[in-house]
Amino acid sequence: MDFHRRMLRLLRDEGPLSRADLGNRLNLSRPRVMAELDRLMAGELVREADPSRGGRRSPFVELHPGLRFAGVDLGITSIDVEITDGRLEPVAAYSEAADIRSGPQAVLSRVGDILAKLRAEGAYQRLHGIGIGVPGPVSFRDGVPVSPPIMPGWDRYPVRRLLAHEHNCPVVVDNDVNIMAVGERYGGVARSAESLLFVKLGSGVGCGIFLGGELYRGSDGCAGDIGHIQVQPHDPVCTCGSIGCLEALFSGIALEREATSAARSGSSPALARRLALQGSVSAKDVAECAAGGDAVSLQLIREGGRRLGGVLAGLVSFINPSMIVIGGGLTGLGSVLLAEIRSVVYRRSLPLATGNLPVVLSELGTRAGVAGASFLASDLAFEEAS
Amino acid sequence: MDFHRRMLRLLRDEGPLSRADLGNRLNLSRPRVMAELDRLMAGELVREADPSRGGRRSPFVELHPGLRFAGVDLGITSIDVEITDGRLEPVAAYSEAADIRSGPQAVLSRVGDILAKLRAEGAYQRLHGIGIGVPGPVSFRDGVPVSPPIMPGWDRYPVRRLLAHEHNCPVVVDNDVNIMAVGERYGGVARSAESLLFVKLGSGVGCGIFLGGELYRGSDGCAGDIGHIQVQPHDPVCTCGSIGCLEALFSGIALEREATSAARSGSSPALARRLALQGSVSAKDVAECAAGGDAVSLQLIREGGRRLGGVLAGLVSFINPSMIVIGGGLTGLGSVLLAEIRSVVYRRSLPLATGNLPVVLSELGTRAGVAGASFLASDLAFEEAS
Repeated sequence: MDFHRRMLRLLRDEGPLSRADLGNRLNLSRPRVMAELDRLMAGELVREADPSRGGRRSPFVELHPGLRFAGVDLGITSIDVEITDGRLEPVAAYSEAADIRSGPQAVLSRVGDILAKLRAEGAYQRLHGIGIGVPGPVSFRDGVPVSPPIMPGWDRYPVRRLLAHEHNCPVVVDNDVNIMAVGERYGGVARSAESLLFVKLGSGVGCGIFLGGELYRGSDGCAGDIGHIQVQPHDPVCTCGSIGCLEALFSGIALEREATSAARSGSSPALARRLALQGSVSAKDVAECAAGGDAVSLQLIREGGRRLGGVLAGLVSFINPSMIVIGGGLTGLGSVLLAEIRSVVYRRSLPLATGNLPVVLSELGTRAGVAGASFLASDLAFEEAS
Repeated sequence: MDFHRRMLRLLRDEGPLSRADLGNRLNLSRPRVMAELDRLMAGELVREADPSRGGRRSPFVELHPGLRFAGVDLGITSIDVEITDGRLEPVAAYSEAADIRSGPQAVLSRVGDILAKLRAEGAYQRLHGIGIGVPGPVSFRDGVPVSPPIMPGWDRYPVRRLLAHEHNCPVVVDNDVNIMAVGERYGGVARSAESLLFVKLGSGVGCGIFLGGELYRGSDGCAGDIGHIQVQPHDPVCTCGSIGCLEALFSGIALEREATSAARSGSSPALARRLALQGSVSAKDVAECAAGGDAVSLQLIREGGRRLGGVLAGLVSFINPSMIVIGGGLTGLGSVLLAEIRSVVYRRSLPLATGNLPVVLSELGTRAGVAGASFLASDLAFEEAS
């Protein structure tokens, strides 16, 4: 019953609709709409909207207010959880520090604790779907991480099966970049972009790809691995073993390394002061020092933007997208970064491809991941309701 | 009537089918199949197969033997034309030298003459569709070249409208790389590949992209412009005005330039002999000298393969295709080129993405373009018959 899925999606994306509207939109007869809605109501997925209007049957229906989805975003050093209602509006959220390297049992047990806590606080009675993103390659079909380089113990760990068993609901597992791209595509700055490159700039660098309005995962599910595109033929050696990868030259980790070195060498007094005070300097310090006019920090951001821009220029020539969104932790580098990326992309790619190509910062920021995970969860739940 | 299109495609791709088969494949009732087929027969698009079997109505139908499509491949220095039957089997072909820079009137008038000649020789009575590829960007929707850099006078020239008027049949216009990719995807080595990068190595370098089984043209129709991806930050200046583009470093034109310089400097006695004899050296000479063991020629091919491989490795990380096909005039460089490309792609991209990734040479060679153009013509003609 594909109609159920389409009805539920319409009510999620557009809110309460009249029965007549639903029938028109799905090209269904009135009796058929009624029959299908009765089934969805019996399953407590849909209810009559504004049921306060006395005895008259309301012509409007909406998603059941008890619908709840959980979006979980596992970072390298964090767990973010958000509970949403059926329309994907946030109901409750919780974040904590965590180390992905402590292994799946420890991390997923914390996820379980957080969900239990949110339930105890009244955020939900039962979950209708869970979406979870992990910082590494995933077999979307099997719902397991596949040879994730920075997640010891997670390889083929049955994340989907265990969560589905524990919470008795459909579960979707994807990589962290894809869930963020989905978040921006459905609830952020890239709403309804036909073809979209969503670049996550964090500890590492990755890219979520929408083509023809659909998330594109590639032939083996590992499309978007742009952090390991070579940008120069010599140093440095990357964690992947190759040489001159984008993320070895520009990423949270690379920036920290270069900022520390600039602080130590004394070339940046501003960074040196922070290093002396805090014992370390991060991408955030670089952003703040740049805002304060520190020449070395500005240079580090410009250099990084130039490198990322060069890679993106090539990808624009190749795939001719309709939008580029820059997201992830490093978006704090802000307008200087964006200006540099734009300058390279607009200068290097075919004018026909860049004439109408917005290059913008993420709108949802740190929420992009959990928002996209909830979206994927709702899509799956609506499909399974069909 | 989408059923007409699907019937005609099935008969094109699989040959004669029984009425029962057609009904099953399209999920149509027997009377409905009969009615639809009667319409297609009346239009002389379909006929009963093997009509010699006396009075009994044959249960098999096939495409009408009078169906004819023309595939036209305009190169920078050539016109290739092929006439095919409804099943896209070649009926007649003709090629001649031509200069695309002589402008659309001159070139299209030669195309008209060639078609008239083939008609006079009995290759067709009337054309049911024409597909034409041009060596530059095309607005597929409008059927016109758009700002083609090496085709003076062709910008927005109404190629589709004029040909359709002249030959009174549907016409499809696409760029030369896309029609070659379509040719290999439907009739060559990439038959039914889900996601395919078809790299054309000729005077320039371009890429045709199949994703999810469909040709991907990009948001502005200019996807696949990989010849202008920057591969080094310094020289040489490319015809596009940028610096260090792939095709400024490796393409037919670049190879000719470097081979000439090697011949003049005396570093390659084999190339020097050919230059003295012929007055010029081409990519073909490099291939032949390499086969004869000339170290400089081998080095030129390896260097080119390394550069192209580097770009492809990045695109493999980005889009995770299921196959790469190398086509175009430079495929004569053969196994040395292929070995170098493979070596870089397999070394530089994610193992998950290259585990099942064939990198192979085109099977159709110079026929790829006309074959793909006929395919596109048949698709359009079948759609318009619906």
